[in-house]
Amino acid sequence: MIKAGILGGGQLGRMLLQEAANYPVETWVLENDAGCPAAHLCNHFVRGDIRDYETVLSFGRQVDCLTIEIEHVNVEALEQLESEGIRIYPRPATLRIIQDKILQKEFYARHNIPSAEFHVIQSAAELTNHHAFLPAVQKLGKGGYDGRGVQMIRRPEDIALGFDAPSVLEKMIPVKKELALMVALNNKGEAAIFPPVEMVFDPLLNLLDYQLCPAELPEKTFWKAEAIALSVARNLQSPGLFAVELLMDAEQNIFVNETAPRVHNSGHHTIEAHYSSQFDMLWRIMLDYPLGNTDAILPSAMLNLLGEEGYKGRAVYEGIGDCLAVENAFVHIYGKEETKPGRKMGHVTIISKERAELLHQARKIKHTLKVKGTEPIK
Amino acid sequence: MIKAGILGGGQLGRMLLQEAANYPVETWVLENDAGCPAAHLCNHFVRGDIRDYETVLSFGRQVDCLTIEIEHVNVEALEQLESEGIRIYPRPATLRIIQDKILQKEFYARHNIPSAEFHVIQSAAELTNHHAFLPAVQKLGKGGYDGRGVQMIRRPEDIALGFDAPSVLEKMIPVKKELALMVALNNKGEAAIFPPVEMVFDPLLNLLDYQLCPAELPEKTFWKAEAIALSVARNLQSPGLFAVELLMDAEQNIFVNETAPRVHNSGHHTIEAHYSSQFDMLWRIMLDYPLGNTDAILPSAMLNLLGEEGYKGRAVYEGIGDCLAVENAFVHIYGKEETKPGRKMGHVTIISKERAELLHQARKIKHTLKVKGTEPIK
Repeated sequence: MIKAGILGGGQLGRMLLQEAANYPVETWVLENDAGCPAAHLCNHFVRGDIRDYETVLSFGRQVDCLTIEIEHVNVEALEQLESEGIRIYPRPATLRIIQDKILQKEFYARHNIPSAEFHVIQSAAELTNHHAFLPAVQKLGKGGYDGRGVQMIRRPEDIALGFDAPSVLEKMIPVKKELALMVALNNKGEAAIFPPVEMVFDPLLNLLDYQLCPAELPEKTFWKAEAIALSVARNLQSPGLFAVELLMDAEQNIFVNETAPRVHNSGHHTIEAHYSSQFDMLWRIMLDYPLGNTDAILPSAMLNLLGEEGYKGRAVYEGIGDCLAVENAFVHIYGKEETKPGRKMGHVTIISKERAELLHQARKIKHTLKVKGTEPIK
Repeated sequence: MIKAGILGGGQLGRMLLQEAANYPVETWVLENDAGCPAAHLCNHFVRGDIRDYETVLSFGRQVDCLTIEIEHVNVEALEQLESEGIRIYPRPATLRIIQDKILQKEFYARHNIPSAEFHVIQSAAELTNHHAFLPAVQKLGKGGYDGRGVQMIRRPEDIALGFDAPSVLEKMIPVKKELALMVALNNKGEAAIFPPVEMVFDPLLNLLDYQLCPAELPEKTFWKAEAIALSVARNLQSPGLFAVELLMDAEQNIFVNETAPRVHNSGHHTIEAHYSSQFDMLWRIMLDYPLGNTDAILPSAMLNLLGEEGYKGRAVYEGIGDCLAVENAFVHIYGKEETKPGRKMGHVTIISKERAELLHQARKIKHTLKVKGTEPIK
């Protein structure tokens, strides 16, 4: 029985472990929080810090292969483990590129992968050299994630908001559509690509409302997006799963925004809507089985279930029954003990032949399914 | 968060727990074997005997609702728990009927549900009164399961093989086809029926080779089978899932063979081949959510993966990669530590539009995917 470890015990780990139970694999999870979503679904839970060298090293020495569910892990320990023969998905060298936005942007440039023009900035003072380059987006080299570490610098007056740390300043793309593509690469270098998904934003609040799969794209753009995503994954020179976030402008030019070398929020719909899910696919790669079928069974919409504004404390779910009354709506609650505004507490996938039906149901569920908490925030 | 307990920790419990992680439910498992397939996938594993009154009682008092993955549990404890307000799926009164083949047969007769003619037998001596009734099948009233406790009595000479215990002697049906239907009933009495499956036997060995869904049946027989299965479930007067095994003769008469009031081997294909699986469905019932969609996404074949003859000891899997190379073949390995000849070690589901493709691939996989063991049996 192959022994596999996961660094991180959040919802991605949880869903990986639901699929792991289909295969002959013994599972380990490393995470600081013993009440995390994945803790009770593995064979061996180890409490510890995924950023600590010694902790990751001794954790990794117990297993045959390792993966991550978050990028912010101790990569030096992974390099040592790799040198000792542990298989790591993605490879530590790849993770180093992804962990630092400066290295990531330089990687795209080096491989002629279309991505927004950029300057590397070492401190806030340097921002003043780039007035003519605005509007731009400043991204912290290291440490940013889930929207943190990103600052819009539209006008010279915004420069005061900038980070005083090594970062990239990217030219702002006039975005027409945000897309994401998931690429699977196995140990032999064989690839499989999931169809592109399209993010749909609330026009009033500019928040991600839900995502649709497949994205509505002209055929030429569809192929271009696939080719770019595949090029990103191949050039990262590692087996694993890669979620490539793309931006499309009004002329259907495609730019890579960022890449995550792991299972990803943008692939949740694959659990019900595709023959092989992103979680199944990663196990196939790690256990050296043939790649799965990425085809869609039916088109799908996926919406994240976020902690409602105005509540914290123990999570209280409202409207799950109403949601499950919708034909082919599937709920995933992550089992997080505490809610807070905007925290990812679950997601819902709806599958249907009819795109209009997907949109209609996604909007309806968004307004009926709520995660409140035992402590109102005044 | 609702607290739910499962009596038994085998593969059915394992697959129930894989689905439980989609819902806000805290899970308990009671099972004697701490290395059982379900042990590491629940929130709380309790080691203990599901047949022991005190053990089941104290286990059940910790939860809001309970289900079973095997019928042989202490039903007196469940009756006490029910009187204390614990919701039990199926109800203990229903389980009492199912646990005893004599009561089960009398139940079918009482409700005019077609089933093979039978005599109740108290001892082996009584068998001699029924020469004219042969060929028949003698089934132990209590204690038989998984093929044990069943004896063919074709001729008077076979009477010597009979059980000397309370049992039923059933007239042998000239079986043309074996079918199974899964019925879901919720707390409100609403029902959902999964399409019938058909068992396909190896013509040489008369072993169950694989099952197909949907069964190939004349439309009238299809409706009759559904009506009979629904009648069985409704008359059992309990919410829950009911797997009704049916026998069809050459004239397309349908007879109920047996009923299992729980998730069942004949429903494994629903994980990939149906929108809502039998495991998802039972959680919907227990958590009081609307019933799921029982429609098939595509036709399917399911084959059990049995411990290979000639091996015991630690399980060694051969051919999983070859199996997963088949488009839309899905493997479920149950994680049992030890194999032995004929033990259920996993299953494979194949889905395809083409029935011929299902048959072809099921046969191919049956010959390439093997569970051997570290200790050859001489």
